[in-house]
Amino acid sequence: MDFLTNLLDLVGTAVFAITGALAAGRKRMDIFGVVVLGCVTALGGGTLRDLILGDLPVFWISSSHYLAIAAIAALATFVLAQRWRLPEIALMYADAVGLAIFTVIGFQKGFYITHDYSIAIVMGMTTGVVGGILRDVLSGEIPLIFRREIYASASLCGAAVLTLLVHFQLPNAFSVSAAVLTTLAIRFAALHWNLALPQFPFDEDL
Amino acid sequence: MDFLTNLLDLVGTAVFAITGALAAGRKRMDIFGVVVLGCVTALGGGTLRDLILGDLPVFWISSSHYLAIAAIAALATFVLAQRWRLPEIALMYADAVGLAIFTVIGFQKGFYITHDYSIAIVMGMTTGVVGGILRDVLSGEIPLIFRREIYASASLCGAAVLTLLVHFQLPNAFSVSAAVLTTLAIRFAALHWNLALPQFPFDEDL
Amino acid sequence: MDFLTNLLDLVGTAVFAITGALAAGRKRMDIFGVVVLGCVTALGGGTLRDLILGDLPVFWISSSHYLAIAAIAALATFVLAQRWRLPEIALMYADAVGLAIFTVIGFQKGFYITHDYSIAIVMGMTTGVVGGILRDVLSGEIPLIFRREIYASASLCGAAVLTLLVHFQLPNAFSVSAAVLTTLAIRFAALHWNLALPQFPFDEDL
Repeated sequence: MDFLTNLLDLVGTAVFAITGALAAGRKRMDIFGVVVLGCVTALGGGTLRDLILGDLPVFWISSSHYLAIAAIAALATFVLAQRWRLPEIALMYADAVGLAIFTVIGFQKGFYITHDYSIAIVMGMTTGVVGGILRDVLSGEIPLIFRREIYASASLCGAAVLTLLVHFQLPNAFSVSAAVLTTLAIRFAALHWNLALPQFPFDEDL
Repeated sequence: MDFLTNLLDLVGTAVFAITGALAAGRKRMDIFGVVVLGCVTALGGGTLRDLILGDLPVFWISSSHYLAIAAIAALATFVLAQRWRLPEIALMYADAVGLAIFTVIGFQKGFYITHDYSIAIVMGMTTGVVGGILRDVLSGEIPLIFRREIYASASLCGAAVLTLLVHFQLPNAFSVSAAVLTTLAIRFAALHWNLALPQFPFDEDL
Repeated sequence: MDFLTNLLDLVGTAVFAITGALAAGRKRMDIFGVVVLGCVTALGGGTLRDLILGDLPVFWISSSHYLAIAAIAALATFVLAQRWRLPEIALMYADAVGLAIFTVIGFQKGFYITHDYSIAIVMGMTTGVVGGILRDVLSGEIPLIFRREIYASASLCGAAVLTLLVHFQLPNAFSVSAAVLTTLAIRFAALHWNLALPQFPFDEDL
């Protein structure tokens, strides 16, 4: 991975760990629950991606700084929250940043291993959304991805933009930035204006 | 795999994707949640089977039509539900069909890789029930397998019948059909007459 | 593995299967749900450990007595519970025994494969806590690890003690016993005196 991708990867790891810590905090977990949920959120998506692709042992076994960054980010969140109030919406925006970054990281790894755009897109979405799904299930919430908001579709759009730019061999720094900004823009817009996709027209009374 | 097994595999994938889409619909998820939950339900059992057996990358990476079929079946369910009401019981019967088929598919893959009947039975049950467990956990329901109904035992009976017929080397088409029909018959009977196995006699007041 | 480790491994498997069966019983699952939840609890932690480390197929495929022990222990729990009342706290103490043993087993396998103490500690905790997390999520409870009790930290202390003793090359039987007793002592104390770690100071009203 080049410098930009590496940097983004670390930022994404820290940001997802923070969202895990915030979610653990909202459930009044102790310091250990906070660190564990932070690490699961930060590393869960990439772990499932590596398992599915068969790239084992998973990434955070060979590069142990991922685990360290996730744990430190979760601990720092725990400590800082002693001093400042953290608004609930902070979790949602941080989650959007993690989603945008990990979609790109997952796409790149999936494409590197399979050279197949559709698999790369699915691996991008998997890496982007699974950490958050684990966070939400483990803290007893309905996963963000299954609420009535634009979430997985933001990840899909980012991956689609990346597919296009990679296909036409644009410079990596440009493609990566464009894809991250696409996902971020869509997700921020969805959060800000409460945008939603069409719903399933199931009858209540069934 | 021969023609019949292949055909059943595709039918099972589509049917489980439909149950995922229906479950997503009952929770009023948007079109994306519907597709994602459909794919997770259709591919989840086989994914865990391949992970446990170490047959990586998992099946839907090398054969990308599985993902396409699951996504299309979920989308079609979403579109059709705009026009026709779908009774809740439809999900239960479709789930039984998926359970019966995936038990056989999982058994065959497990037996092909390990040549061990007991592992093959467990892999059959894993492939049959895990997609539905993921569907139910992610949509906030208690998994079917843990409700007071004959569910996993239907899968076990199908796998046991298959063990017997495979052991005595009966023709594959016959063995497969008999195993699928066994699971289906037991599960349909359980749904129709509300059959249940003995319960755990735990005291309410503990 | 030497004799003591092997013996502990079997005890841990049986004990976790019993906790799974008890949890299934409290939810009034039928005999099949009881056996399935017992097996998932007993084998879940080691399965995720083997997946993450890439040691595939997972341990209970090559050594099928694990599956047999878990199923028999769960069945026996189901049968015995017909005759004797089992107090709820039994689940908590049995869980502590499983946690202590599997932390050591997971540490040893992680260290054997990676020769890295920090990975070994994480694999010890993973093996110790994941079975219980799956048990709790599948039976609709908030996982023990995320409640306000000393749980994962007991596992961490056991793994830390083991790291120290392995590093100074003390006899295996001594190191293993000391680590198991450390985790057990901390967890029993936490259960007995209701000890808790500092909580996340999130505002209720956010």
